[in-house]
Amino acid sequence: LTVAPPAQEGAFAAALAQLGQPDENAARWAREHHERLTKPPGSLGVLEALGAQLAAIAGTSPPPLPAPGAIAVFAGDHGVAAGGVTAWPQEVTAQMLANIAGGGAAINVLARAASASVTVIDVGVATGPAAIPGVVGRRVRAGTANLADGPAMTTSDARRALDVGAEVAADLVAQGAGALVTGDMGIANTTPAAALVAAFTGRPCATVTGRGTGVDDAMLATKVALVERAVARLPRDADPLAVLATVGGLEHAAIAGFIVGGAAAGVPVVVDGVIALSGLLAAAALAPSIVGFCIAGHRSPEPGASAALDHLGLRPVLDLGMRLGEGTGACLALPVIEAAARLLREMATFDAAGVAQLPR
Amino acid sequence: LTVAPPAQEGAFAAALAQLGQPDENAARWAREHHERLTKPPGSLGVLEALGAQLAAIAGTSPPPLPAPGAIAVFAGDHGVAAGGVTAWPQEVTAQMLANIAGGGAAINVLARAASASVTVIDVGVATGPAAIPGVVGRRVRAGTANLADGPAMTTSDARRALDVGAEVAADLVAQGAGALVTGDMGIANTTPAAALVAAFTGRPCATVTGRGTGVDDAMLATKVALVERAVARLPRDADPLAVLATVGGLEHAAIAGFIVGGAAAGVPVVVDGVIALSGLLAAAALAPSIVGFCIAGHRSPEPGASAALDHLGLRPVLDLGMRLGEGTGACLALPVIEAAARLLREMATFDAAGVAQLPR
Repeated sequence: LTVAPPAQEGAFAAALAQLGQPDENAARWAREHHERLTKPPGSLGVLEALGAQLAAIAGTSPPPLPAPGAIAVFAGDHGVAAGGVTAWPQEVTAQMLANIAGGGAAINVLARAASASVTVIDVGVATGPAAIPGVVGRRVRAGTANLADGPAMTTSDARRALDVGAEVAADLVAQGAGALVTGDMGIANTTPAAALVAAFTGRPCATVTGRGTGVDDAMLATKVALVERAVARLPRDADPLAVLATVGGLEHAAIAGFIVGGAAAGVPVVVDGVIALSGLLAAAALAPSIVGFCIAGHRSPEPGASAALDHLGLRPVLDLGMRLGEGTGACLALPVIEAAARLLREMATFDAAGVAQLPR
Repeated sequence: LTVAPPAQEGAFAAALAQLGQPDENAARWAREHHERLTKPPGSLGVLEALGAQLAAIAGTSPPPLPAPGAIAVFAGDHGVAAGGVTAWPQEVTAQMLANIAGGGAAINVLARAASASVTVIDVGVATGPAAIPGVVGRRVRAGTANLADGPAMTTSDARRALDVGAEVAADLVAQGAGALVTGDMGIANTTPAAALVAAFTGRPCATVTGRGTGVDDAMLATKVALVERAVARLPRDADPLAVLATVGGLEHAAIAGFIVGGAAAGVPVVVDGVIALSGLLAAAALAPSIVGFCIAGHRSPEPGASAALDHLGLRPVLDLGMRLGEGTGACLALPVIEAAARLLREMATFDAAGVAQLPR
């Protein structure tokens, strides 16, 4: 008789136990150094705040370059796809995984431009071959159940997906990643994302449910109704893991684990759009200090994304109307985030350059 | 007796004569190609519009990479600096030129990160050595006169500065630049920028005059009053060149020439903050088609920047609260702009990748 170890001893629990706090002293050193650099005080705007955050995450100023970036694209399918919430056939999840593994998707192009790696992880795809070449097979189950009719998955499934995410994060950092980037692929995955955002922020479902990609007015009404049904089933005192299992998705849970894993390893985690933010909400409900390790890469036009950003107190780096997923918005932010570290590392000080400073 | 050739025969006039229109067919080809790429239609947001604009500028789709970038930092001084509109000593202009030439300024750090070159051009510095090592000496005059008391310069000075800008643009493109980036350095140069924005947009001076770097409430009131005095002196029917000469600055005029020179050479011109935008307003008043060759790199918090962006119908790529100048905001946008071209060049189509398309 073999007994599986209790889930509390998995990679996610280990990451939670290892998780520290961003170092406020290092952030202060970075802010003080910015005052000495040859520019008007504060004139680098958000780059100065990012530089201080990178210093806090690394525990040193100037911070190391948050490079190379490593993008993990977690893929899953969703029972709710059968409920009329998406215009795309479910087969597209597996087809797009093969496209990403083959280097032809948007995330591949953006990752190459940013000298970042792309790792694709099947955490719950429902169609196509069991093993796709170039895809890391960590399927917890072949898609979730329809969250409109009952729990999307068991809490044990959700724990396993959290573990997969935390393990991938630890592996990528061990291989030398200086920043982690969340990515996702899954037809219909904005539906569980909306449900998670509603559950964790307390906002009405109709205000956080969006059109995803290719949803018309009638489909949106259906989508809102299904999200409302799912969220209404949650007990008022549901713990974060129960919420994730009941109305979430496998890639959402894996991303939550990935974020905690990256934070525990002390690297910045660049978070993409509404899928990633819904995972971050779950992770932050379990461990609030992880938010300090996260940088919102961009503002997705999905209403749930802005609701999550507000709730978490995050200001996105980019706002370019991107709603593709795969980690594209977060990946595109990498050069800006790297620049924030480079400025602290490379700019001359007033003293060294012989430039007159503002009178105090 | 030698007679100077009429200014109409200078580099700026030549660029104006050579200036074409962006190619709307190429833009349409790019938009059509985006519909075939493996992503939901429109899901790359602003990157799709940028890709179409790059195609229109190059006259072909997919467009060439807008790389390498070449930043030209035009430097000048301003008589109005003596009027209590800035907290910085005028010597800082020359000191910062040496810093940029030495590689220690913010623009150097950002340019290295973007694999872009930095060229520094003295078009009107008033203090320091006549020749600074590493700085291209094209001084039209040693700073402008105080625009609050009379014309900042003659129209002949302004023409010469326009020529310098157009020549620098042509040289950089001849040396292989795939995109030009406007940069500036000049203590007090947000004052003439505000006057130019007020003159070209027709907005009240008080609404387009900002704090620049390090201006307190009293200084801001002085600055608004001086800008109002300068703009009030303009005749109602002043032509764009007269406006530039009367209330502008040498680097503002050089940037106007640089933008027209880049557009005439058929490369995208990435425009920085309020100094560059005020130059672009002057250039667009002379040749409206140049706006189609320009990409607003970022939104500066200076109120004149947003007024100019609105007037020109430009949507900035970044909005990071940067107000440093030197071309820093525009340079930081280069990777995003390059990504727009890469996506059109490298992404797989639905057919090639075997991914199901949205039903039409």
